[in-house]
Amino acid sequence: MAASMGVSRFHKWSNGQLLKYFRRKLTPSLRGTGTSAAVCQPRPDHEDAGKTFVVLQEERRERAERSVLISCPSKTSEKKVLKFLSKHGAINNCFFYDGYGTYAVVEFANRDGIHSLHEATSLPSVLHEASVPFKSRLLNLKGNGVDQSNGPTSLKLHTQTSPPINDLIQRLAAEESIDQQLHSLTSTLELTNENVALRFLVCSLIKDIAGAFFPECTIRPFGSTVNGFGKLGCDLDLFLDLDSVSGSSTKRPSGLSVEYQVKRVASERTVTQSVLSVVGEGLEQFAPGCVGVQKILNARCPLVRFSHQPSGFQCDLTANNRVAMKSSELLWLLSRVDERVRCLVFMVRSWARVHGITSSIPGPWITNFSLSMLVVFFLQGRSPPILPTLDQLRDLASPADKCVIEGNDCTIVSDLTKIQLEQNTEPLETLLQEFFEFYSTFPFNRMSINIRKGKQVHKPEAAALHIQNPFEAGQNVSKNVNAAQLERLVALCRESAWLLAHGGVSVPPSTVRVASSGVAKAAPWGVAALLLPSVAEAAGVKGRRKKKREPASERIKSLLQSLNKPGKK
Amino acid sequence: MAASMGVSRFHKWSNGQLLKYFRRKLTPSLRGTGTSAAVCQPRPDHEDAGKTFVVLQEERRERAERSVLISCPSKTSEKKVLKFLSKHGAINNCFFYDGYGTYAVVEFANRDGIHSLHEATSLPSVLHEASVPFKSRLLNLKGNGVDQSNGPTSLKLHTQTSPPINDLIQRLAAEESIDQQLHSLTSTLELTNENVALRFLVCSLIKDIAGAFFPECTIRPFGSTVNGFGKLGCDLDLFLDLDSVSGSSTKRPSGLSVEYQVKRVASERTVTQSVLSVVGEGLEQFAPGCVGVQKILNARCPLVRFSHQPSGFQCDLTANNRVAMKSSELLWLLSRVDERVRCLVFMVRSWARVHGITSSIPGPWITNFSLSMLVVFFLQGRSPPILPTLDQLRDLASPADKCVIEGNDCTIVSDLTKIQLEQNTEPLETLLQEFFEFYSTFPFNRMSINIRKGKQVHKPEAAALHIQNPFEAGQNVSKNVNAAQLERLVALCRESAWLLAHGGVSVPPSTVRVASSGVAKAAPWGVAALLLPSVAEAAGVKGRRKKKREPASERIKSLLQSLNKPGKK
Repeated sequence: MAASMGVSRFHKWSNGQLLKYFRRKLTPSLRGTGTSAAVCQPRPDHEDAGKTFVVLQEERRERAERSVLISCPSKTSEKKVLKFLSKHGAINNCFFYDGYGTYAVVEFANRDGIHSLHEATSLPSVLHEASVPFKSRLLNLKGNGVDQSNGPTSLKLHTQTSPPINDLIQRLAAEESIDQQLHSLTSTLELTNENVALRFLVCSLIKDIAGAFFPECTIRPFGSTVNGFGKLGCDLDLFLDLDSVSGSSTKRPSGLSVEYQVKRVASERTVTQSVLSVVGEGLEQFAPGCVGVQKILNARCPLVRFSHQPSGFQCDLTANNRVAMKSSELLWLLSRVDERVRCLVFMVRSWARVHGITSSIPGPWITNFSLSMLVVFFLQGRSPPILPTLDQLRDLASPADKCVIEGNDCTIVSDLTKIQLEQNTEPLETLLQEFFEFYSTFPFNRMSINIRKGKQVHKPEAAALHIQNPFEAGQNVSKNVNAAQLERLVALCRESAWLLAHGGVSVPPSTVRVASSGVAKAAPWGVAALLLPSVAEAAGVKGRRKKKREPASERIKSLLQSLNKPGKK
Repeated sequence: MAASMGVSRFHKWSNGQLLKYFRRKLTPSLRGTGTSAAVCQPRPDHEDAGKTFVVLQEERRERAERSVLISCPSKTSEKKVLKFLSKHGAINNCFFYDGYGTYAVVEFANRDGIHSLHEATSLPSVLHEASVPFKSRLLNLKGNGVDQSNGPTSLKLHTQTSPPINDLIQRLAAEESIDQQLHSLTSTLELTNENVALRFLVCSLIKDIAGAFFPECTIRPFGSTVNGFGKLGCDLDLFLDLDSVSGSSTKRPSGLSVEYQVKRVASERTVTQSVLSVVGEGLEQFAPGCVGVQKILNARCPLVRFSHQPSGFQCDLTANNRVAMKSSELLWLLSRVDERVRCLVFMVRSWARVHGITSSIPGPWITNFSLSMLVVFFLQGRSPPILPTLDQLRDLASPADKCVIEGNDCTIVSDLTKIQLEQNTEPLETLLQEFFEFYSTFPFNRMSINIRKGKQVHKPEAAALHIQNPFEAGQNVSKNVNAAQLERLVALCRESAWLLAHGGVSVPPSTVRVASSGVAKAAPWGVAALLLPSVAEAAGVKGRRKKKREPASERIKSLLQSLNKPGKK
């Protein structure tokens, strides 16, 4: 409903209103609202530059272990909270956000701070209920040491969600070039350092449950949280890494030796199911803030799904998912090779989502990972290439990077500085335009996308869309996609290519409309126009599929033609 | 089947054979076999004398935490095993037993020994299976550093089970007085120090599972394991004590304060169910050696039942069962006041079990606890009393002994030395005889057994058998017993009183029969004769209830009369 408003407004306006809208200048105040729309930087911070993926994740994990998550009274004075907490130890970082109430993420300089805080922490005394006395690092701050003023809280709250699509479109419409729009889109949607810290903290809290039985295990986030392409509000995929449990010995010493007596089960899969079953039970029964726990143990990849209320994350916990982790590392590496990679991937993912090419429910839809593969493959094919092939990444690897998972060579270089490519200076606008054109005409019926070689190869098997799994050569990462969904993807690429090619959407705004509220708003153009959900799509989303669909391309074409006509006034 | 052999043998013998059997002297070699039949001492060891119940249990718990349970190859050389293990730390105690294979219980002088051993312990490498990498203190000793000789193992194995009833009867028949028989019975059946240590070790291993989530919790054995009346092979009742989880605060500090965020549930019962559910899941999925895990969470007292294979214990795990713990302390205290108490309780429990008055399955049968209450009440009524009343135990308590559980005053003195009674020198034979007579004529229809006052009081409510719960005055500990079972109890008391009063069974053996094997065997007499299962009972146990029953008293009376006749020879 909300998503369709951008389009319906156009329909209500006269052509003269639209032209006027496009001709007016943006007011500076609009540009600065909300999350900064400055040109995005390869994330994360400068201090992280030069670190390998593994080192970076390990540092974040370690910082999370020194952190606590504290629910604060609604009117919290940051200064008083910090003063109170710092009695327990030096605080390295702290930020506040609004979720189910106000929360603070507090990172102590070391774990002693947490120990000291825990010693001062009491179990709640409940009058008419009972409580499970499980002590975690999820705490409630109580008392009257809070902001006593009646005004709005002075607290700086960090947003943990991406803006509604209409707000995003408005923000993009206010930019002055497509390149700026793509940078703005990325910097608006990308995970903030705070959100990543919160994600690692949730992993660490879940680790306290799983680690109860397996002290040496680790819970690692993978996928969007760490691959450089995560969007605020995306699911938190985590996996329980039991491989870190030490002490498997293959050689038998000559004299006496001791072994742990352990439960024997039929397969590793059974181990995974057992472990996830107990951890899921623990989450459900003990872990504060974990709700809606579902054990989906008979899936191909057994998982426990739950909502972590204090952070607002929807979590999927799997086990021993090391290939997925390596895929995350690969994407992260590619996201850091050239900043245009992230801009294109964020755009293509957002565009696909708006048009229903991807979905949050399983089915024949293309996945974000497959979309990223398409972008990577496209960028590998530029002249000169913007991204290296996977074989090149493997060839650059040092002996220490050697990695074999379940018989598959997953070796890739870890040192980013080793990746040296000939300079390619194509603007993002060109790349986006040509991305859509490339996949408008790609021979999907015969050819497979192969990012290992960086070229198309003949399909090894029948599948509407064939994208070779980068680390499991025999697998097709998009085998779920059916012909109808592929056709939609190709049709939308064609339509978007056409839109970008026919200058209409690429004209920067020359009009500003003063809405009834008095706030100046730019009309969607360029990338913003590509993100407008069509009426038909919006209707489809709402289930009103009976309404006759006009092809989106036709509809937008006529809209653009009408914009190019001289105004009636 | 085996249990009825003692009687059937009598039936096959002529009276002459029987008399000859009674007249012959015991061979000394028989007296010394198996567990020593020496006069039993108040258990446990001298070093424990003067310690309170709580201190004693705490010491045992602490020792268990420094212990490991190790499965050893069948031909283990004790010396080599100890040499190997002591590389990791000084060993305070070690013993071996046979269960599912040979096991060693090894108590290190401190936990460093366990840490060192764990560091040298590997996870098993399994070829065609997988294993859950849960690291516990249940280990396997591997390798070839064992006894290479082909002879029987030189290892001293401590038995952890009570002998079959026939062996017990034979052993008792060889004693020379009823008092000696009762002491022998007790010392044969009672828990050994090793068995108690093994029980505490199993609790400690289970604590490692529950403590994963609740590090401050404790698993405590209660009932037979600690109440002084435990029999080798009895079930291990344990409870998860969450009350030891610290940090419940009722007062609110004036400034800011921190509380743990916890799951809120409807009641303490729900907490118990949650905790037992997760612990049960952990036991089933991870804990080596725990098999047949049943969660019985909807019972009045929710519990998890399982078998601990390496120790052979059938375990019932409940939670927050503090009244049951206090009852165990009460029995333990009474068992230490006078050594005759344990002898009588062991006898009455064994006698009840042989005759099917108690049962291992729930139902209308009288429980061991109720039987103990009957013995205690009887001994309180002797002149002078052999046991103090519960009110006296309360009046002797120091302020530190004050104990209120769920509103009930459960205060009893902890210092044994404060209990001073006038000397009663009645022999055990008299006490046993009079116990049976007392309950043969007790007005169960009107009166309730009240060990708090040490006298019978009018029944407060309808129930076949009414024994006031010592710590919950409103409760009847034997409300499950129906009229039929009470009648059986009274009838058997009458029969046994008659048997003891009519000297036949009290004549020490004057005959020994040399069996075909050449081993001399004494005929059952005295206490041994009371423990003979009647043919009818044995048939009943086997389900052959159609066989017409001859009243046991009649049967044994005629047997005795025949014995008193002069032999035909």
